[in-house]
Amino acid sequence: MVAVDTDTITADVASRLDRARAAATAAGVAALVITPGTTLRYLAGYDAVLSERLTALVLPAAGDPWLLVPRLERAAAAHSGAAGLGVEIRTWTETQDAVAVLAAGLAAGGVRDGDRVAVDDRMWAEKSLRLGAAAPGVHQVAAGALVDPLRMRKTAAEIEELARAGAAIDRVHARMGEWLRVGRTEREVAGDIAAAILDEGHAAVDFVIVASGPNSGSPHHHVSDRVVGVGDPVVVDIGGVLESGYRSDCTRTYTLGPPSAELAAVYAVLQRAQAVAVAAVAPGAVAGDLDETARAVLRDAGHGELFTHRLGHGIGLDGHEPPWIVDGDRTVVEAGFAFSIEPGCYDEDRWGARIEDIVVVTEQGVRPLNNRPHELAELPARTSPPPAERSPLPPRSSA
Amino acid sequence: MVAVDTDTITADVASRLDRARAAATAAGVAALVITPGTTLRYLAGYDAVLSERLTALVLPAAGDPWLLVPRLERAAAAHSGAAGLGVEIRTWTETQDAVAVLAAGLAAGGVRDGDRVAVDDRMWAEKSLRLGAAAPGVHQVAAGALVDPLRMRKTAAEIEELARAGAAIDRVHARMGEWLRVGRTEREVAGDIAAAILDEGHAAVDFVIVASGPNSGSPHHHVSDRVVGVGDPVVVDIGGVLESGYRSDCTRTYTLGPPSAELAAVYAVLQRAQAVAVAAVAPGAVAGDLDETARAVLRDAGHGELFTHRLGHGIGLDGHEPPWIVDGDRTVVEAGFAFSIEPGCYDEDRWGARIEDIVVVTEQGVRPLNNRPHELAELPARTSPPPAERSPLPPRSSA
Repeated sequence: MVAVDTDTITADVASRLDRARAAATAAGVAALVITPGTTLRYLAGYDAVLSERLTALVLPAAGDPWLLVPRLERAAAAHSGAAGLGVEIRTWTETQDAVAVLAAGLAAGGVRDGDRVAVDDRMWAEKSLRLGAAAPGVHQVAAGALVDPLRMRKTAAEIEELARAGAAIDRVHARMGEWLRVGRTEREVAGDIAAAILDEGHAAVDFVIVASGPNSGSPHHHVSDRVVGVGDPVVVDIGGVLESGYRSDCTRTYTLGPPSAELAAVYAVLQRAQAVAVAAVAPGAVAGDLDETARAVLRDAGHGELFTHRLGHGIGLDGHEPPWIVDGDRTVVEAGFAFSIEPGCYDEDRWGARIEDIVVVTEQGVRPLNNRPHELAELPARTSPPPAERSPLPPRSSA
Repeated sequence: MVAVDTDTITADVASRLDRARAAATAAGVAALVITPGTTLRYLAGYDAVLSERLTALVLPAAGDPWLLVPRLERAAAAHSGAAGLGVEIRTWTETQDAVAVLAAGLAAGGVRDGDRVAVDDRMWAEKSLRLGAAAPGVHQVAAGALVDPLRMRKTAAEIEELARAGAAIDRVHARMGEWLRVGRTEREVAGDIAAAILDEGHAAVDFVIVASGPNSGSPHHHVSDRVVGVGDPVVVDIGGVLESGYRSDCTRTYTLGPPSAELAAVYAVLQRAQAVAVAAVAPGAVAGDLDETARAVLRDAGHGELFTHRLGHGIGLDGHEPPWIVDGDRTVVEAGFAFSIEPGCYDEDRWGARIEDIVVVTEQGVRPLNNRPHELAELPARTSPPPAERSPLPPRSSA
């Protein structure tokens, strides 16, 4: 296991506010307003509570950043990375209109009517609309256009965190035979997987999908009380979050006993499609073309209609973030980009299969962060052990 | 334990779309646009995945509701409560601009330039801004003003769910002495509490705050690796989520061994403030006046400066929702409202204490849903048992 290089991550953070300010200046944006979420954590090292109470990092294109927090979050903010970066912490009290305080602070910092202010993509609409009412002359735009290009280009320290998460989730998949057995419910299996996600080094469970039999035909099925049966395909798509916030996400498809001839035949093509797409990843590749690379393999074999979703998505502090590896997207990938390659085939209400690896673009080409075998993983069709041998752990929330 | 009356909850849901439509008509709003979250679950029984892919329930003031979902969520939507309510399900594919599809659907449904459309309070700003660009003549307002009055008035079935959650979290507090011991870290204690929240009947952990010693002086401290010591005050604020989505939230303050004279003296006033505020709850009470009722008790004893946050917040499908029990708020509470009464006193970086019950307004007055003793709970200052006796459970994510 690669050690966490916290110092390097911290050094990364120190430069991010400067880079975001430069991006704002280049785009003619007067200020960024970033609410709790991964962009706030990325820019200022503050993993803030998201609630109805407004917390916002204000980064003027010309001027010093400040962080507006509810008074009762002052201690948390003061102990966060933001304070270490020299960000001024301002508070509002329970009886103040926090959005009015924000608007006044923007105006005092030189934001004028006609200026553009970039608000966090995930700011609540209720707050964006109130800011619009409090500063009607200011034109709000989405901050993603400025911040996403920074977040997509992972540093070496970020990539090592993603690699550490990838190795941890691979270890969970390697143990799947301990839990995935005939006679157990998807929910029971998911409970054990969730415990293993923590045991193998994640600080939190991100999500657990155990889609068995006909449920595997729905790409976003999570878990149910369905009992896994002999011959079932089971799509297991799982992810966790490290203490640093970086995430894992890996899918393998299992069968309990031999698969149907139909599934085996489609799976062979799916596996080829996934491998061809991974091999096509390199600096200069176009996101939409990667999607087409995998899609063409399935289409040429007559299975194009079964692949109903995009090929992949970026990953970092968010489980799903830019780049989007989707038909028509013209994003050119660069060294340091990290994203999933996850084609799937779904015959709704009958069966499905998916293969997913996280890959990082390197100067030389591609580095997969998930390295379990890609074949359809056949587990013995034996029934579950007697209750006494089962895990005593209760099921957990999977998302 | 009160049985879950799923049929009654379902009957509740069936009337909600009609009531929301009536509220829209009364407010002169052409349509509601509700994205994944508790309002979507409340109105249409669909506990949808929140992601970058747009899902939106459209409820025209005149016309039938429809639900726009990504194609890969179609199966999930079709199996949700929305389908049972007769809501038409429409899909968009990975290569379409979902917001453009939404805007076109609104226009086709009769929404014209100059009309007002109420968007979900928590819709991502990025989507609200894109909708603004796609339908520049439409005036967006926050849907909370229409939906909150419905959600605040809980039905009997909803109140029984909240009562069931309240009893479950009371059982966790009753067992606190099993885990909260000198020599253990806050994080270890929180891991055991999280397991007990599930064991006692919740489907998921909402949050676990274990704030010991000086950490108790920060009202929103969560957990840390601090080791609990002899004489420490420990604020334990915990909540879970039932399968139905309804939540618990209850705080008690413990000490490991006898408290300091200072803490004991302030706590006695705090307990009186909390009791006086609970007793003041009745139909017709004004939210801000309830806050003042508790605050006056503390102020009169010279401790007003220590109470740094609002008195309480509503609870239901969200852990924090209207009404807000805060100074100056003129909301008049009605039978069926459910909210917390949780005064606290904090001497930052030294010590803190908080007492929190969820209460429901009844025709006759008030029904507390948390019923553990309100006294400062002194636990023996013995050290933790040897490792072999400790829980084998790993720590869990608390929020």
